[in-house]
Amino acid sequence: MASPFKLLHTDSKTAARVGRLTTAHGVVETPAFMAVGTQATVKAMAPTELRTLGAQIILGNTYHLMIRPGLDVIQQAGGLHRFMGWDGPILTDSGGFQVFSLAKLRRITPDGVEFQSHVDGAKLFLGPREAMAAQATLGSDIAMAFDECVAWPCDRESACKSVELTLQWAARCREAGRASCPSAAKDAGKKTGGRESPLGTTSLSRGTPVLQHQLLFGIVQGGIYGELRERCARELVAMDFDGYAIGGVSVGEPEQEMLRQVDVSVPHLPADRPRYVMGVGTLPQLLAMIARGADMFDCVLPTRSARMGRVYTMRGAYAIKNAENRADLGPLEKGCACYACQNFTRAYVRHLVWCNEILGHRLLTWHNLHVYLELMRQARAAIVAGAFKEFQREFVARYVVKKENDESD
Amino acid sequence: MASPFKLLHTDSKTAARVGRLTTAHGVVETPAFMAVGTQATVKAMAPTELRTLGAQIILGNTYHLMIRPGLDVIQQAGGLHRFMGWDGPILTDSGGFQVFSLAKLRRITPDGVEFQSHVDGAKLFLGPREAMAAQATLGSDIAMAFDECVAWPCDRESACKSVELTLQWAARCREAGRASCPSAAKDAGKKTGGRESPLGTTSLSRGTPVLQHQLLFGIVQGGIYGELRERCARELVAMDFDGYAIGGVSVGEPEQEMLRQVDVSVPHLPADRPRYVMGVGTLPQLLAMIARGADMFDCVLPTRSARMGRVYTMRGAYAIKNAENRADLGPLEKGCACYACQNFTRAYVRHLVWCNEILGHRLLTWHNLHVYLELMRQARAAIVAGAFKEFQREFVARYVVKKENDESD
Repeated sequence: MASPFKLLHTDSKTAARVGRLTTAHGVVETPAFMAVGTQATVKAMAPTELRTLGAQIILGNTYHLMIRPGLDVIQQAGGLHRFMGWDGPILTDSGGFQVFSLAKLRRITPDGVEFQSHVDGAKLFLGPREAMAAQATLGSDIAMAFDECVAWPCDRESACKSVELTLQWAARCREAGRASCPSAAKDAGKKTGGRESPLGTTSLSRGTPVLQHQLLFGIVQGGIYGELRERCARELVAMDFDGYAIGGVSVGEPEQEMLRQVDVSVPHLPADRPRYVMGVGTLPQLLAMIARGADMFDCVLPTRSARMGRVYTMRGAYAIKNAENRADLGPLEKGCACYACQNFTRAYVRHLVWCNEILGHRLLTWHNLHVYLELMRQARAAIVAGAFKEFQREFVARYVVKKENDESD
Repeated sequence: MASPFKLLHTDSKTAARVGRLTTAHGVVETPAFMAVGTQATVKAMAPTELRTLGAQIILGNTYHLMIRPGLDVIQQAGGLHRFMGWDGPILTDSGGFQVFSLAKLRRITPDGVEFQSHVDGAKLFLGPREAMAAQATLGSDIAMAFDECVAWPCDRESACKSVELTLQWAARCREAGRASCPSAAKDAGKKTGGRESPLGTTSLSRGTPVLQHQLLFGIVQGGIYGELRERCARELVAMDFDGYAIGGVSVGEPEQEMLRQVDVSVPHLPADRPRYVMGVGTLPQLLAMIARGADMFDCVLPTRSARMGRVYTMRGAYAIKNAENRADLGPLEKGCACYACQNFTRAYVRHLVWCNEILGHRLLTWHNLHVYLELMRQARAAIVAGAFKEFQREFVARYVVKKENDESD
């Protein structure tokens, strides 16, 4: 099978690039922002609205979905796409990040992690084999390898051990991934025994199982240690993943440290595979990552901040609850083409947010996601036009973050 | 001006009737259900979605809107329609019910009520004059007279005093209503001095004030005392309102008592004016009211219950959180044409509601409002077809309320 990723343009002044990733549920133009749909819903949005916004791909969280509603329910529904009514590409994380950040850990072994659900305390186990099986059941277009994400700060010895474990688990995931993909399994000499069927198929139309090619990305870890990042990247590349993520960023470290992890990882990743920086970031950060050669991003900021009344615009961020918006009859962002800005005023949205009305959350989510997706569209156009460096410089120069009470960015 | 209400059909076997109420923002076919938009939003819904649902008219709450965002903000926005982006008819209540049920009362005088805001404790005053001025500022299509709604149970003496006050206030509202309507003011011999302009106009398109004819409904009170209801109705009718509401029902009394208040009030109301039963009710109750000659209804049940996971259908009500829905791949209601039922399963909606996801509230609200509006459509068709009695009997016979944990109905 041809590589699912096609590199279309590479910027001459930065490492920015434009590409096209083909998945079982459609094409993703990169650089791409993935809206986060943790619990089988991008918070406050309906799937048709995501389409209207031009969302190309969304993210689902294996850990949350295995706890609620349970993988059996999603399997019966015919996979995550059918369950949530989204027929576009979905990337699922492996659950590793949540196991280490949300759950109460019980025991870590080479086979995986025993932990307790953060919802009801149920005892669960997740390792590379289980994470791959879960993602096969979800039927996502892109699965992520099961990894260990260390906290920040983290000493060198712990980071080193974590990279070891992440690489062992990556190898197991790669093997399980080949096993679950019939064509790959054939190439690998039919190592899979009787396991193709439950893992390698997903019911796209209820009752009619359809073979699906699920892409698998490896995750570069290594904390703040350049040589660990390099080693992790090199060994993952040797395993030949469909794409590579840079994990363990945006875990509390300063922005410059985060950018450095991308700088030290990217040179060791192949140009012909997509690069996904996990859990990042603000609008200027996305441009900084793109300039460093990153292609894909996910972040809860546009959706989570919306629920806190925070508005992102192409010229900065502000808090809608501020008194200056009380009788402001202008849109959330002047000139914005989104549904919220075309139909409602700041004064109205501010009123809704003060009253904790669902429509307020909806309109801010709509607008914020529009801005994130619009930035990606503009970035792609700038790269194609050979003007990305100027685009980034001008964007950052006019981007003002207004003082506020809620989380900073 | 011709009467805004045209009676089109009267049922031969019951008192049910079909009519057409013409307002400044459009026509309302009756019997009509009005979705409640307390804080300038029908909870969880966007205005375009209400249109898609076939909502003909919605309700706004003067008390809540004067507290948040404040009448000055809505005035600057050009009225409630423009503020909330809904260009169809709006009925506003007078604030009386909320003053007596939500606020901390300070003092009742013949001029009105001094009270403290339930939000921030601010000292406010609302009486017939203020309520009419507020509703003129909101620019609603139908204003309600300022009344006193007594609690249940209520002794005869208190109910009698309350009717006295309600009638005094109704007369003042009627006078203010005539004053605020330029044509009526002319008829009334220009009693209004210089007050036409601020009360009688509302800015429909920003910056371009347009004269608007606001209808005014009187409210029949009297508790459970038939002779008080009769007296109140007769005196209100003598004041010649555009429509008549039956208030002080659904305040905790048994259903039979509620129906009796409609029975004793309706005979004293003119056939050529719409009759609005306030704050009612379940689907079978709506049919019972229609059979008694009622034309308009509002109730928080479809929207509030949605947020509690309660599903209304044409065959009964159930709790989506129940275990039996965990892996149910059918729609919320079999055969339902609404957006939620056409696109999502019970299993998915149950999952969303368990996770307290906004989309869960949205889908249940969408469906519940669809059912309420659909029942009105079917009731109108049945009345026109001369088959309302059979329609009601069959509906009630198959309507099953499943046991659940949340509020009963």
